[in-house]
Amino acid sequence: MAANSSVADNVKALTFDVFGTVVDWRASIIREGQLLAANKGYDVDWAEFADRWRSGYGPAMNKVRTGELPWMKIDDLHRMILDDLVIEYGLEGMTAKELDDFNRAWHRLSPWPDTVAGLNRLKTKYVITTLSNGNVSLLTNMAKNAGMPWDAILSAELSGHYKPDPEAYLKAADLLSLAPEQVMMVAAHPGDLRGAARAGLRTAYVIRPLERGPGRPVNRNPDGEFDYTADSFLDLAKQLGA
Amino acid sequence: MAANSSVADNVKALTFDVFGTVVDWRASIIREGQLLAANKGYDVDWAEFADRWRSGYGPAMNKVRTGELPWMKIDDLHRMILDDLVIEYGLEGMTAKELDDFNRAWHRLSPWPDTVAGLNRLKTKYVITTLSNGNVSLLTNMAKNAGMPWDAILSAELSGHYKPDPEAYLKAADLLSLAPEQVMMVAAHPGDLRGAARAGLRTAYVIRPLERGPGRPVNRNPDGEFDYTADSFLDLAKQLGA
Repeated sequence: MAANSSVADNVKALTFDVFGTVVDWRASIIREGQLLAANKGYDVDWAEFADRWRSGYGPAMNKVRTGELPWMKIDDLHRMILDDLVIEYGLEGMTAKELDDFNRAWHRLSPWPDTVAGLNRLKTKYVITTLSNGNVSLLTNMAKNAGMPWDAILSAELSGHYKPDPEAYLKAADLLSLAPEQVMMVAAHPGDLRGAARAGLRTAYVIRPLERGPGRPVNRNPDGEFDYTADSFLDLAKQLGA
Repeated sequence: MAANSSVADNVKALTFDVFGTVVDWRASIIREGQLLAANKGYDVDWAEFADRWRSGYGPAMNKVRTGELPWMKIDDLHRMILDDLVIEYGLEGMTAKELDDFNRAWHRLSPWPDTVAGLNRLKTKYVITTLSNGNVSLLTNMAKNAGMPWDAILSAELSGHYKPDPEAYLKAADLLSLAPEQVMMVAAHPGDLRGAARAGLRTAYVIRPLERGPGRPVNRNPDGEFDYTADSFLDLAKQLGA
């Protein structure tokens, strides 16, 4: 802590990864699937379905990176993956409206229990923004739906490059009129934080042991790779003096 | 009203001009000048100074439009104009810190009395965002300072084109994942609204008779040129059923 106090004071803005860091996408998608099944009578392992939907997202982004696909909003990537899963899981008889609504489940993801309270505390000391691969409209709708008190909605969409490409982080710092070292990336994913660090940002690792379901191994940042490690946004606020 | 009810229902997001529409820039700058004078002993007509600072902004933007200047954040345009005015008005002995702070007066502008209450009402029915020529960080700091409940901070900066160029409005609609006709521009300036209409957006004219000081002629949109005309954000909320 003491060693880090100058970091905490030099930082002016916190940029947050969203899926997994701010919201519990897995439990939210499972619940949306169960709701759909309650109406339509499907018999599906929704935990597996949620994991498959999420795991299609990295390869789809890579197709954009390599130019195989044009730039796409995450909404459209989610829909492309969903359209395949609907066939694979035999979700027959879904109307166009039901498909659109199910795809927008990602706009309604539930925050972790400490998210809103922690953001409200962090907001008293820092500018707090999203910095997600999710598109601006998805993040805006999610914040409105769940009462997240962001000061601004930033997204990889504004740079035309997905994280962890450096352009995504550098565009955020530029839009905030800050030097990269005045911005701290907050994420539950080491790969995202390493991308941020390569671009010159500070890093805070928030441990979300349940992101991929219970019983998974937990990476507690034992090597001190990141500037801060916290168990929740409230813990992070405490460590930062907010 | 009745004729407009389908407009109100088809619109999903309201994008707001900020300087003059959301905040009383003139009274705010006058007060900041008076505060500065109280500390430094300057004898200046601050109303005239505020008007001069503001009126330098259109020509400066046009120099960017014509390529005479590169793309600039409004913070930098404000500073360029301020540096000239400081010499012209003989504001001697200002430190670098005092100059920086005075230029950031535009981050601290006060809302009109109906602004925050009106935005909170409009937010219950619509996505509400800024759409200003002001840069993202200026708008973010202003909202944080004054408690403005924006769902997202959008700016001409995100398109690299100042309003009333069509790119500024179309980029906002694209980031909101909406068709232009699902977005309504709210502004106190007919020129801004005409630019929005040319890009396909809906328009709401909010009359701000005091923007340039008392005793000025008021344009009440007598020809019904815009979809809505309102006396305040609360009046607009009432007309839109929010």
